[in-house]
Amino acid sequence: MENDLLRWFAANLPSHERLVVGAGDDAAVIRLADGQQLVATTDMLMDGVDFRVGEHDAARIGHKALAVNLSDLAAMGARPVAALVSLCLPQVGGELLTKQLYQGLLATAAKYDVAIAGGDTNSWPGPLVISVTALGEVAPQRAWRRSGAQAGDRILVTGRFGGSILGRHLDAVPRVTEALWLAEHADVHAAIDVSDGLSLDLSRVCEASRCGAVLDLGSIPISPDAEQLARERNDGATPLDHALADGEDFELVLVVPPSEAERLVALQPLGVPLTAIGTISDQPGLWSRGSDGKEQPLAPRGWEHRIES
Amino acid sequence: MENDLLRWFAANLPSHERLVVGAGDDAAVIRLADGQQLVATTDMLMDGVDFRVGEHDAARIGHKALAVNLSDLAAMGARPVAALVSLCLPQVGGELLTKQLYQGLLATAAKYDVAIAGGDTNSWPGPLVISVTALGEVAPQRAWRRSGAQAGDRILVTGRFGGSILGRHLDAVPRVTEALWLAEHADVHAAIDVSDGLSLDLSRVCEASRCGAVLDLGSIPISPDAEQLARERNDGATPLDHALADGEDFELVLVVPPSEAERLVALQPLGVPLTAIGTISDQPGLWSRGSDGKEQPLAPRGWEHRIES
Repeated sequence: MENDLLRWFAANLPSHERLVVGAGDDAAVIRLADGQQLVATTDMLMDGVDFRVGEHDAARIGHKALAVNLSDLAAMGARPVAALVSLCLPQVGGELLTKQLYQGLLATAAKYDVAIAGGDTNSWPGPLVISVTALGEVAPQRAWRRSGAQAGDRILVTGRFGGSILGRHLDAVPRVTEALWLAEHADVHAAIDVSDGLSLDLSRVCEASRCGAVLDLGSIPISPDAEQLARERNDGATPLDHALADGEDFELVLVVPPSEAERLVALQPLGVPLTAIGTISDQPGLWSRGSDGKEQPLAPRGWEHRIES
Repeated sequence: MENDLLRWFAANLPSHERLVVGAGDDAAVIRLADGQQLVATTDMLMDGVDFRVGEHDAARIGHKALAVNLSDLAAMGARPVAALVSLCLPQVGGELLTKQLYQGLLATAAKYDVAIAGGDTNSWPGPLVISVTALGEVAPQRAWRRSGAQAGDRILVTGRFGGSILGRHLDAVPRVTEALWLAEHADVHAAIDVSDGLSLDLSRVCEASRCGAVLDLGSIPISPDAEQLARERNDGATPLDHALADGEDFELVLVVPPSEAERLVALQPLGVPLTAIGTISDQPGLWSRGSDGKEQPLAPRGWEHRIES
């Protein structure tokens, strides 16, 4: 989203006694009448932007539409409960497309024990649009915020980064199981999921927490897709560039105290690698530390949703 | 939605222990971990189908997108709590359009004390799409289902029907206040809000309740818009035809025991008229009773979302 509009939302979306966490984090946290906290997030995916009907298997598109929302719940440390699904279908072939989308969507819902609670199915002359809202639960005051990072904390990531455009973005594995383990067994100060780019999403944690981050560039886990993309494109962008900026990895960035980072990296408690990639600092902005130990400014890069005025 | 697809959903959307009410009612009812019941609904509105950008004031479009969801919560007897808003914006003018949409949306949210908990704002080369998910609360086992109508019950409606296409559909007044009063003070067996057409939506209550309905056609409250539309179109459709079939009235149909109907109609406890229009019967289908007392089959008519296979 354009920064102007982000600022407009920040100035114009009112706070509300029911909102423990409002717009601007991975998901909202809503206080219910009895004190229970509900976590809610919504993502809209569009043909030609997030996938291509005709080129991509519709079951994978259906999976992605749910998975990106479950990834947002995971980034809050929340347990997914239910999802609602709205569709704008093209007028021709819409019925078959719906069944194929739901094939992927229902399989993923079953895998993560998510109830499909309904939705709204429409047709129109335009391309396919899917909007999913996912709802989850979290213990009061236990949701992972972007704003909880503290100077000295270590930055951990799940999995590997870069090159998801080669196809991995459609098969996104939301880190639900990993988040639930960490929510129960670890001390997490802040978290985000990487949808727009590792460096851009990490910069959002820093902004929300009013701090900075120093990355050990040599420790960033690089996906084989990033290597392949750098080779194929041969445009000067390195695999590391792709890892830092490509986005749609749907891995978690977790900010934890140093001793917790040491324990978790040694333990490797998740099915997916957990890697320390840097440290939270007092100095605002992103910084890279090279093999020579020198720190240099690192421009956050990634996918910014452009809205022209 | 095409009936084939409705049947496919009924056969393929699995039940889930968390779903007290799943797809197929006005909203879903989800059981949370502590037993609290959450009511959730989503509606997607599209340029050229539900409104026309350029022709209609964007603030009214934003209002409508939230109001139709609040109407669904009202039809469950639920108290609205929060909403999430997703947008696909056209690439040119999207920022201004967003601010105008939110002007209407935020005013309506404030009016009904709904927290805007966030959303997803995107741009693309296509027309405007707005998807809103509304969340509400209801006491356990107190949500109004479509399936609770019993033979002998009376059918009440709020407000007047027909001709909303003249502009009223954009200024929909969700019957939130009315529903909350009735949820506390009345015995409601079943309910639905009229989005697709009074006769079509009433037929859905009958199907869900495995019963029929006999309508006193002379008692249907007809909107001045229906009179005007019949005059202007002069195509043989009467104001009553419009009232029965036009849809987007966003009034409530309430099925209540006979004594409760008498009490409520005499009391007129709502700011909007409450009118008895007929009786639930054992005989399936819709029937009309004319001034001569004779019963005739009445075909349910209204807006069916067509999806071609």
